[in-house]
Amino acid sequence: MTKKALGILGGMGPLATADLYHKIVTLTAAGSDNEHIRVYIDSNTSIPDRTAAILAGGADPLPAMRDSLRKLEKCGAGCVIMPCNTAHYFLGRLVGLTELPFVSMIGAAAAACRTRFPGKTAAILGTSGTLSAKLYQEALMAQEVPFLEPDALEQEELMEVIYQGVKAGAPPESYRGTFTSVLESMGARGAGCFILGCTELPLAVQQLGLSDLPAVDPTEELAKAAIRFCGYQVKGE
Amino acid sequence: MTKKALGILGGMGPLATADLYHKIVTLTAAGSDNEHIRVYIDSNTSIPDRTAAILAGGADPLPAMRDSLRKLEKCGAGCVIMPCNTAHYFLGRLVGLTELPFVSMIGAAAAACRTRFPGKTAAILGTSGTLSAKLYQEALMAQEVPFLEPDALEQEELMEVIYQGVKAGAPPESYRGTFTSVLESMGARGAGCFILGCTELPLAVQQLGLSDLPAVDPTEELAKAAIRFCGYQVKGE
Repeated sequence: MTKKALGILGGMGPLATADLYHKIVTLTAAGSDNEHIRVYIDSNTSIPDRTAAILAGGADPLPAMRDSLRKLEKCGAGCVIMPCNTAHYFLGRLVGLTELPFVSMIGAAAAACRTRFPGKTAAILGTSGTLSAKLYQEALMAQEVPFLEPDALEQEELMEVIYQGVKAGAPPESYRGTFTSVLESMGARGAGCFILGCTELPLAVQQLGLSDLPAVDPTEELAKAAIRFCGYQVKGE
Repeated sequence: MTKKALGILGGMGPLATADLYHKIVTLTAAGSDNEHIRVYIDSNTSIPDRTAAILAGGADPLPAMRDSLRKLEKCGAGCVIMPCNTAHYFLGRLVGLTELPFVSMIGAAAAACRTRFPGKTAAILGTSGTLSAKLYQEALMAQEVPFLEPDALEQEELMEVIYQGVKAGAPPESYRGTFTSVLESMGARGAGCFILGCTELPLAVQQLGLSDLPAVDPTEELAKAAIRFCGYQVKGE
């Protein structure tokens, strides 16, 4: 199988990009530096906020994203991935801006719900932008996975965890109560597994030590899907 | 101050590159995605082994490194850094291949010895390749920092910690005795601080819980120096 170089359209946000890159390195079956994937990353921190663009008429992120695509093309990337759930709202338009194939984070996560938690109802945790864009809802329907969306209060608490908590670099204990409140409330409504559908959320789960949570980390599923797509082997597979 | 984009000539190795990128993100004083540095990374896993090139006449890594420099230039990087101690052996030749300024990991670590441990003698811990290339010795002399190199037995023990310990994924307790023997022996010879001049060593210190060790982590010092050079602020400074 021909091996491809991997392009990461990153910076949305930078910590999530670092997390994805770290996962790609540690999940690749490689015995030396030279057996790893060649990865090009543009951590493009000038991309306007995606949720603001979708929900509040904020600046269009497409031009800045197109700039990153051009750079990844010039470097020689063979495919593109984005460690930002909300950015996948723009995937349809991005695909038209480049000849490079995309590996979808949403598609990888939805497929993992079906194979890892068969028959369970998946709770979709994400920003209001991701939820309203119906990204996970459509992908889960395609995989025939039953799902649950946060109600208004749960969504408000979740946004607080993401923006005032993780993105702001606040101490984990400051958002533990708010986050567990969302998990318990959705669990009581029937959730059997949780899609950590905002790249800040796997970090929250890790920092809070919630390793027993039946969770799907889209960043990890994207890392694995990208490793396979580039012609490399996932460790342990 | 004009802000610069940062280029990382990475892949030597990929995990050290992920560690450096993570440190840059977490050490930057930023309240939102857009306040972070724009970072371009080429995790170039096709660069031949540096130690083999220096000590055993292995393939020249310069052509592959030049390819990465061209890509970082085209992306728009304003400076370049490399998360590999041994790669700095080639720095003099790399500087002639690009107009981009380099921020040196060795220089950043030597400067940190002077400012953080004034008057103390710095013990240089690293692979035999790094020690024989005299990289740290020269940088410390330029900073007028007194230093100490491992003697033959200490170097043998250090290589055991790096190769049979950390690189081999051995349990930390299996190399605790060997590593503390090196630290105590060099401490008895007058070392007042320790340069963890091999990317495996900060991991050993962390895994063994030696948080009280007066240590300089070159990856962390490089991250801080790069943040400042790009016109951004280090968290807490």
